[in-house]
Amino acid sequence: MIKFFEKDPYAPVQYVYEVERVLYKSKSNFQEIMVIENAFFGKMLILDGVVQITEKDEFFYHEMLVHVLMHSHPNPKNVAVIGGGDGGAVREVLKHQCVEKVYFVEIDEEVINVSRKFFPEVSCNVDNPKVAIKCIDGAEFIKDKTGELDVIIVDSTDIIGFAKSLFTVEFFKSVKNALTDEGMFVTLSESLHFHRDLVVEVQEALRLIFPVVDLYTAPIATYAGNWWTFSAASKKLGLRDMRRKYNIDTRYFDEEIFHQSFLPLKIYEKLLNKRLPW
Amino acid sequence: MIKFFEKDPYAPVQYVYEVERVLYKSKSNFQEIMVIENAFFGKMLILDGVVQITEKDEFFYHEMLVHVLMHSHPNPKNVAVIGGGDGGAVREVLKHQCVEKVYFVEIDEEVINVSRKFFPEVSCNVDNPKVAIKCIDGAEFIKDKTGELDVIIVDSTDIIGFAKSLFTVEFFKSVKNALTDEGMFVTLSESLHFHRDLVVEVQEALRLIFPVVDLYTAPIATYAGNWWTFSAASKKLGLRDMRRKYNIDTRYFDEEIFHQSFLPLKIYEKLLNKRLPW
Repeated sequence: MIKFFEKDPYAPVQYVYEVERVLYKSKSNFQEIMVIENAFFGKMLILDGVVQITEKDEFFYHEMLVHVLMHSHPNPKNVAVIGGGDGGAVREVLKHQCVEKVYFVEIDEEVINVSRKFFPEVSCNVDNPKVAIKCIDGAEFIKDKTGELDVIIVDSTDIIGFAKSLFTVEFFKSVKNALTDEGMFVTLSESLHFHRDLVVEVQEALRLIFPVVDLYTAPIATYAGNWWTFSAASKKLGLRDMRRKYNIDTRYFDEEIFHQSFLPLKIYEKLLNKRLPW
Repeated sequence: MIKFFEKDPYAPVQYVYEVERVLYKSKSNFQEIMVIENAFFGKMLILDGVVQITEKDEFFYHEMLVHVLMHSHPNPKNVAVIGGGDGGAVREVLKHQCVEKVYFVEIDEEVINVSRKFFPEVSCNVDNPKVAIKCIDGAEFIKDKTGELDVIIVDSTDIIGFAKSLFTVEFFKSVKNALTDEGMFVTLSESLHFHRDLVVEVQEALRLIFPVVDLYTAPIATYAGNWWTFSAASKKLGLRDMRRKYNIDTRYFDEEIFHQSFLPLKIYEKLLNKRLPW
């Protein structure tokens, strides 16, 4: 049996997966793209040696990335997904009937095409008429927008590498400017077990720009550290309030998960003060 | 750099750790015992090729194994820890002043000794006068007890292997018999990501014996699947109520974590009905 050794330079434990078959391997202008098949996880999308999604468990990540803010926001109509070439975040956003337009901003068109071919259940809605696909740099895209987006979602690769421009104070400024008055923003921010300092860095950068910043987590089996964080920010409204009724079809997310996912306040305060005892 | 490849026959992903030094390696009457040092996790205790605890993150597991029930129970005085040779569970139990006696039932004395030597901060309280160390089979120990234990905690190796006797209906019957009227029981029950069927098996076996059964989880970075479950049972009292004030020193557990840790009710119902969508 061939094995795939994940190449995550940030993780203190390396994950190894058995490979039934290598279904695809190529180099785009931005990264190495690979699709393998594993007996337990099904098809797995791997970018530059790091697992991005697996057929079996992608919904944990995509639902948690999207639905928390989509329920905090009172009425999200215009949404941007930055990254997320697999289409999973777009699929989740479109479950909300109130959404009128989704900008799907993925720098690497090849990822969208590979997902269309190998992950049809993930990319199923990228060609929906409400979706505008933009194969450009997310930071460039956001720069040109002013006060028109209700929710902006960053679904990028890890913070290192070419996605770095999506985690700068400058980018967060553009995001704030691109949002409506009640606008909200969420980005992945790595693992609370393994990358605590990185989590704090993202939180601090967001706090320089936004009056409301928060953090929620989800258990993701295939991301190193697994206790995965999402950093969220808002121009006005608190994020822990559920302002819309939950009536969409999900596999993991629900009302209780919404509330449970936010980091307990005492731990959150310790995190920000760099007094977490681990 | 030498690498340690974890040998967990149940996990669909293999964890690999870099080894700074191998500090100890021997074969006891029951298992292979190894202590290695890793740059991130510090010292790691490995039994039969599976990581049991690491210096860096053992408190997540030990606090969550112990303090949930120790706060559900109104007044735990007599406690038994089955397994847990490293002493971490005993250390946590003794944080509760109300505890008068702890039976520490570890079949493999060698694990206790190795922990005394290499993990002094974990095993720090195993020689406390309130602790009675019994190096015998936990199932045999419990068989002889009737109505005298307030809380029984199983801290064993994985459900496969020689710890299997701690997950049978027969054992759960002995546990019930050993408990006082308000007695409570908790055992690890593997990962909700990777071993869902095993989780359900443990839950179903407990439900044959106990009127109250529940499930809570915690994120543990070094156990495969990471979204780790604890199956809890009670002879009378509900487990989701916090009956004692939280006033002990912990690194992760607190009141909010207590409440957040229980599986949301809708997901829990789906789990039991084998309708979880993953």
